[in-house]
Amino acid sequence: MDKMNHSSAEAEAETIEPLRYLSKGEAASIETELVRDYKFGQQQLIEIWGHACALAITKAYPLNSLAKKQPTVLVICGPDQNGSIGLVCARHLRIFEYEPTIYHPKRSPHSVHQDFTVQCEKMDIPFLSYLPTELINDAYNLVIDAMLGPEADPANIKEPYSGILATLKQVKTPIASVDVPSGWDVEEASQDGIHPEVLISLTAPKKCAMSFSGKHFLAGRFLPYDIQKKYELNLPEYPGTDCLIEL
Amino acid sequence: MDKMNHSSAEAEAETIEPLRYLSKGEAASIETELVRDYKFGQQQLIEIWGHACALAITKAYPLNSLAKKQPTVLVICGPDQNGSIGLVCARHLRIFEYEPTIYHPKRSPHSVHQDFTVQCEKMDIPFLSYLPTELINDAYNLVIDAMLGPEADPANIKEPYSGILATLKQVKTPIASVDVPSGWDVEEASQDGIHPEVLISLTAPKKCAMSFSGKHFLAGRFLPYDIQKKYELNLPEYPGTDCLIEL
Repeated sequence: MDKMNHSSAEAEAETIEPLRYLSKGEAASIETELVRDYKFGQQQLIEIWGHACALAITKAYPLNSLAKKQPTVLVICGPDQNGSIGLVCARHLRIFEYEPTIYHPKRSPHSVHQDFTVQCEKMDIPFLSYLPTELINDAYNLVIDAMLGPEADPANIKEPYSGILATLKQVKTPIASVDVPSGWDVEEASQDGIHPEVLISLTAPKKCAMSFSGKHFLAGRFLPYDIQKKYELNLPEYPGTDCLIEL
Repeated sequence: MDKMNHSSAEAEAETIEPLRYLSKGEAASIETELVRDYKFGQQQLIEIWGHACALAITKAYPLNSLAKKQPTVLVICGPDQNGSIGLVCARHLRIFEYEPTIYHPKRSPHSVHQDFTVQCEKMDIPFLSYLPTELINDAYNLVIDAMLGPEADPANIKEPYSGILATLKQVKTPIASVDVPSGWDVEEASQDGIHPEVLISLTAPKKCAMSFSGKHFLAGRFLPYDIQKKYELNLPEYPGTDCLIEL
């Protein structure tokens, strides 16, 4: 009997399909469909994702676990959607009583992104005019990398991001990356890139996260079931009403 | 010593200012400022509020506490922002494994509201073409009233909402209202209106909620500190990373 139960449990386990890791093309298609077919707005998606990123940070780095006296966090934001997600994350972290500081070297000309900047400015979150390379280890508990999203081409990273990445490879402060570690190829783990301690995958993890050995969160519980089915995402069951899960 | 401690505790308690209840004008001003000065987008606010409403429902009516076999919820949506918050609430309730059904008799011509409708349709949430007056008690565990917001004039409620309110005054199914119970004056509790069991105040409670004796939630933790100060909201401390609090 024991043996039979064992076998049947094994058989059941086999029917649970493993979590899918997305290619660059699949990640782009899902986002296109969310906006075009499912009528999600970019502003809405950025708010959902940024809020989830802030929650992931509170789980990975609770206020009472931080090494420094002040709960400082440096949030480095890119020019496009990933950067705006970083801005929303910073705003919610401020509400959760962290002390975020933002470095946002290139601002988008699009009002959807600019509005997120204003929201942070109006929450009295400081913006840096340059990256304080020498001070990062001493001043910040954590760097949030919200620079380059899955759409960026890692073979063609320009200033200021190439310089920032060179700095981030040196710092001892732990890094938490949003969706894809900046500078990594979406489909391959990077050998000589930055080494984030935490990765927050949005919607579904990308192929480059397959061998990621740090703390890995997945956010994007709102995803319509038809998209989950179409792309065979095999998402895990999110606990309770949480909008993110640690993988 | 004991006496002294007691007095000093009393003095401290006295310095905690009581939660502010908003007039109709104040509620409108805060929302105008959020959009005009703080650059929050309507889509973003509706997503934040709708998500918080769904979480309030999971707290007030946990899945395992529902009287009926199926976790059915009827969400009645108005034509404007309050209705869209109901749509977002329904979508998140679906994700939390409730079975929402939407009655949305008048749809907005504005794309920001229409998009929220499409999002629900694409999640396979059924829309009713009429209110099944006779069936509500038997079919639904709960009615969510997301009809008329604080901008509505209770002295001038037209069809179909006047008819729906007449029905909701009769039903035995508990009602949870979003922001302001439909048909109530924003500044005064209603004697002969609907009697919600749950009220989910958004941003800050309105004057009509002062004598509300049901379960009362407050959602809107994202509110910028300058607005909180300007309107002397004296918001309570939200627990942990929760986006809502039971008052």
